[in-house]
Amino acid sequence: MPFAVIMAGGRGERFWPRSRMAKPKQFLNLIGEKTMLQLTVERLEGLIGIPYIYIVAGPEFKDIILEQIPQLPEENVIIEPFGRDTAAAIGLAALVLGQKNPREVMIVLPADHYIGNVRNFHEVLRSAAATASRGDNIVTLGITPHSPETGYGYINRGELIDTSAGISTYRAARFLEKPDINRALEFLASGDYLWNSGMFVWRIDLIRKMIEKHIPLLAEGLKEIEDSLETDQYPKTVQKIYLELPKVSIDYGLMERAGNVYVIPCDFGWDDIGSWTALERYVEKDVLGNVLHGEGILLDTVNTYVISNDRTVALVGVEDLIVVNDYDSLLICHKSRAQEIKKVVQALKDKGFDNVL
Amino acid sequence: MPFAVIMAGGRGERFWPRSRMAKPKQFLNLIGEKTMLQLTVERLEGLIGIPYIYIVAGPEFKDIILEQIPQLPEENVIIEPFGRDTAAAIGLAALVLGQKNPREVMIVLPADHYIGNVRNFHEVLRSAAATASRGDNIVTLGITPHSPETGYGYINRGELIDTSAGISTYRAARFLEKPDINRALEFLASGDYLWNSGMFVWRIDLIRKMIEKHIPLLAEGLKEIEDSLETDQYPKTVQKIYLELPKVSIDYGLMERAGNVYVIPCDFGWDDIGSWTALERYVEKDVLGNVLHGEGILLDTVNTYVISNDRTVALVGVEDLIVVNDYDSLLICHKSRAQEIKKVVQALKDKGFDNVL
Repeated sequence: MPFAVIMAGGRGERFWPRSRMAKPKQFLNLIGEKTMLQLTVERLEGLIGIPYIYIVAGPEFKDIILEQIPQLPEENVIIEPFGRDTAAAIGLAALVLGQKNPREVMIVLPADHYIGNVRNFHEVLRSAAATASRGDNIVTLGITPHSPETGYGYINRGELIDTSAGISTYRAARFLEKPDINRALEFLASGDYLWNSGMFVWRIDLIRKMIEKHIPLLAEGLKEIEDSLETDQYPKTVQKIYLELPKVSIDYGLMERAGNVYVIPCDFGWDDIGSWTALERYVEKDVLGNVLHGEGILLDTVNTYVISNDRTVALVGVEDLIVVNDYDSLLICHKSRAQEIKKVVQALKDKGFDNVL
Repeated sequence: MPFAVIMAGGRGERFWPRSRMAKPKQFLNLIGEKTMLQLTVERLEGLIGIPYIYIVAGPEFKDIILEQIPQLPEENVIIEPFGRDTAAAIGLAALVLGQKNPREVMIVLPADHYIGNVRNFHEVLRSAAATASRGDNIVTLGITPHSPETGYGYINRGELIDTSAGISTYRAARFLEKPDINRALEFLASGDYLWNSGMFVWRIDLIRKMIEKHIPLLAEGLKEIEDSLETDQYPKTVQKIYLELPKVSIDYGLMERAGNVYVIPCDFGWDDIGSWTALERYVEKDVLGNVLHGEGILLDTVNTYVISNDRTVALVGVEDLIVVNDYDSLLICHKSRAQEIKKVVQALKDKGFDNVL
């Protein structure tokens, strides 16, 4: 059975003030009762058993992961002592899982995305795992774009490789960084470009070989860590080596350079829920387009999203706002600026308000 | 020496959520360190000594009054068991003060107004008290209007009576209720209309006679209360009688009907600070017109007034808002709707949110 590796190291700054350093987006119940991480694990039910699910995160998140996924074996939490971007996190996971079975398939999934059509998601992963299990190619999941997003990387699909079981697999001709709006419009119009979802499927031995080839400095560090695996030197070694690992994303460090990458175009209701306005698509609105989580009154208020769990709110004559009143912070952001909440977090940091981050 | 009677029974609903049932506007430090009541008492310094200052309010405010004005003798708090509008409150004060000296002058002042030029305020009150001390006429203070306000009553001035000591006193030809905007524009253009400030000066015996004449039911009730004054029956009597007193304003019940009323046009920087937007004139703004009481960041935020003493705020891309984040409530109101905060309070009441009122 393939392994699933859930990447839970994100900071979710665009969901401040609900998302905090100590409890970022993936650990919040933004949609319904369950947290994004819980939904991500639950989504694998019927596809991958709990013993085969691993979660990569910093040491500060170990407790919250085990609390939210109580059935997860403790050793299935792979701790990164520091954040060193996705290539290092994936390399460490491949190394740990390689101890189990280096010829097994490993599925990499972000911890904080939403997928509407789980059945189709499983079909795609089954097909991807089957392709990847041959050991020659990486399979990536590309999302069929519905809008000219400038916040995602794109994958340019090449020749059609396979269409078995109703799933089309293409060669990935190119990986492209976030485009400007004109390029994004071209990508959308051409029909040959897909959003890079950050979901990858490969055999463990293949990804390790590819890291050796494309990110040799990372491979070296990982080798040193590997030598200490299952010895009492491991914690000290990983702590020491990790600090010096190159900080590079798997996309930039490897995907953009590798030739043996496939992509499956997916249309299973994927959403990275990248901001408060994205989240709004998944919560119920009143007739004027308002959402009120909490209690209070909205007078002549339109298209406004309010979260205030501990204080009664009264809004009068406002529109297009995001309002989040949290236990020590209050955000009021025009919806058109929802992407800039990262800037808010930076500005708060610069001003020394670290206690609310 | 004249008595000053400060009317401290207001509800200040337009300052919700800072102003509450239990601690309305007059007890808040909206401007600077001191509360509106403290500023009102302080403003009389050099004109009226503390022993001659009386404050009328409900029983729930006795403690806060004595706390805020610690030098005030306890017996100078005149307790109304229920709010019965201004005529009853003034009648009760006149009755209590009449015990001291019925031929003395009594100055009625609201507890929650602002006056910029205290020196001129004193000059006006000295002149008004001198005129009133003759015992034939009520003297009212009318404010020279600078804008066509529809939220105030107006006084139409008649013939010039006196100009001694540089203070002009006119006969008050008519008292008018709040006008619509067209009438208010006419009033402003004519130059013969003044805002009714709610500040009155009269001899105690005169106002009592006038209440007898114009509001006989109120006079009857007050007579019954008077009979119990300085007996142990007083608390019970005032409680019983007050409930049945007619609920009428001194303007409607008396001023509009009386013939012996004078008015002094005043231009001493009066402001009733009737709303959050009015208050803004007295607090320092940043270069973009923002006020931030509390800590946090304002990104691309314009002309916005924020009070958040216990939570760090971040505002992004908003303008013309009033934001008040209080210990259990959050108000976000477009500035153009500041007058409607009374409606908010009513709506919260209707919805059963009494705990935040």
